[in-house]
Amino acid sequence: MTEQPDLKAHRQGQDLFPTRLERKLRMFQRIDPVVHVGKKQRADGPLTEEQIAEFERNGFLSIPSYFSKEGMDEFIEELREYEQDKDLKLSEGTVLEPGAEEIRSIFGIHRISEHFDRLTRDPRLLEIAQQILGSEVYIHQSRINYKPGFKGKGFNWHSDFETWHSEDGMPRMHCFSCSVVLTENNEFNGPLMLVPGSHRYFVPTVGRTPENNYKESLKSQTLGVPDAASITQLVIEAGGRDGGIVIPKGPPGSITLFECNTLHASTENLSPFPRSNLFFVYNSVENPVVEPYCGNKPRPEFLAERTDFAPLMPV
Amino acid sequence: MTEQPDLKAHRQGQDLFPTRLERKLRMFQRIDPVVHVGKKQRADGPLTEEQIAEFERNGFLSIPSYFSKEGMDEFIEELREYEQDKDLKLSEGTVLEPGAEEIRSIFGIHRISEHFDRLTRDPRLLEIAQQILGSEVYIHQSRINYKPGFKGKGFNWHSDFETWHSEDGMPRMHCFSCSVVLTENNEFNGPLMLVPGSHRYFVPTVGRTPENNYKESLKSQTLGVPDAASITQLVIEAGGRDGGIVIPKGPPGSITLFECNTLHASTENLSPFPRSNLFFVYNSVENPVVEPYCGNKPRPEFLAERTDFAPLMPV
Repeated sequence: MTEQPDLKAHRQGQDLFPTRLERKLRMFQRIDPVVHVGKKQRADGPLTEEQIAEFERNGFLSIPSYFSKEGMDEFIEELREYEQDKDLKLSEGTVLEPGAEEIRSIFGIHRISEHFDRLTRDPRLLEIAQQILGSEVYIHQSRINYKPGFKGKGFNWHSDFETWHSEDGMPRMHCFSCSVVLTENNEFNGPLMLVPGSHRYFVPTVGRTPENNYKESLKSQTLGVPDAASITQLVIEAGGRDGGIVIPKGPPGSITLFECNTLHASTENLSPFPRSNLFFVYNSVENPVVEPYCGNKPRPEFLAERTDFAPLMPV
Repeated sequence: MTEQPDLKAHRQGQDLFPTRLERKLRMFQRIDPVVHVGKKQRADGPLTEEQIAEFERNGFLSIPSYFSKEGMDEFIEELREYEQDKDLKLSEGTVLEPGAEEIRSIFGIHRISEHFDRLTRDPRLLEIAQQILGSEVYIHQSRINYKPGFKGKGFNWHSDFETWHSEDGMPRMHCFSCSVVLTENNEFNGPLMLVPGSHRYFVPTVGRTPENNYKESLKSQTLGVPDAASITQLVIEAGGRDGGIVIPKGPPGSITLFECNTLHASTENLSPFPRSNLFFVYNSVENPVVEPYCGNKPRPEFLAERTDFAPLMPV
């Protein structure tokens, strides 16, 4: 997994992260830092030195019960209202389960819900975001993932950055996601699976991106999925059959912060109960999106902020 | 979940376990014992009184590392040979993954492999089977489940007995399965999920069985799946969101004994590594199959023994 020999040539062509290619290109080492704040300020909090080190090493950090369970109830109530809202169900930012009527995700939720908007500007969360990214931040994307019981389908292995770079034009790895648990995440309901350390490599994927790929990819991702050999190598490097994958579990209010390039997936939810999470992406204001690197027209604004890169202000 | 009022009428029509119906019928309480040996002999072993009580209560019993890891190696080697065997891959008892080339299951494996045949007649296992079923036993069905990494699809919630009764003509619940772990079963590779206590109820399902249903159902089960409300009720009764489902985990050589009517499912295997198990079904010689209750012609012999009900002899 040394640096790709062809990379230099690709760099001259401007794209540091070639992907959606016609031919396979080996994975190569990450170029950008994982924690962007200066060494002196690392220990300034809110995350402890140990937490920052864990995030840097694994590419994610879980904090069980970060918010109170009660604090999540208002979101669950809003979610129930959304389920009854026909207009919302028909709107482009709402993705239904493949072959089903159930809502899979609602995107751009921080533009719809005041509760959600305030959550993204929670002073403690915002300070964590500034600590990790070493700069002011804005919201690149937000969504609610429903994952209804019995019917919620999974998501294949992928790095979010791989999509955000190629389809949204995000230049660098200077970004991370915050996932907030609304209903307990356990081993039965298709929880998030992460490969520790995978964020340290970029895996170029094969296959040209068709226009409007998002209409399919948000239901079932086939493009942008790393080859099996690379995933296997990363899982083995992370600890093999027993320790190479991690599932953060926790009650409502738990959060998982994960780096934009950390490999993750989730299986279907066969349990009777929904596994619902809130999800928002902090991007550095120094890393606003440009034209998509895959050459297509940009995806809609509900998937990727393209106009308002103003720093987020605490509530 | 009281006894179904219509049940009496159904009984007069002979079928104690009406299923694959045109209309929904409520679930009703189990009629047959779970442990069939007499009270006096229950403690005679090989299972301890506690183990027998656990099996009776939960409908399954897991024993980690029952066989040695090394003892499993010969099966894994045989499995690799089967993967290269084109004839076997084309034979009717071999089921491929939906939409893929990978082997999903090989049925009737105790008729193909001497190793496997001997395993089903392991003296300790056979004594356990006789202890649970209170009689001599024979093999109703056997198989290897491959569940290849990345591609192995899951299985929807079902009771095996529901299928064996309707499609094979198994008269009563006097039967259980033994699953032997070949490659570690963990929370990442689509392990078996069981609902404790679900074996105490029979859930009639809706939908007539087409002829040759097995050709589809072995790849993806849609018929014979209990309604969502009944599954939810059973999971809640078993402990709700947190404790209503159990995943037995363990290294190669671990076994899980589960009653023929215990509700179970498994998700897809998104991990890079196969999750392979051996699986065989001990049926009481007092419970040989008759004509299928669904009215169709019987399924092939590789799915259900129909001619040789001779008691299994220990090796």
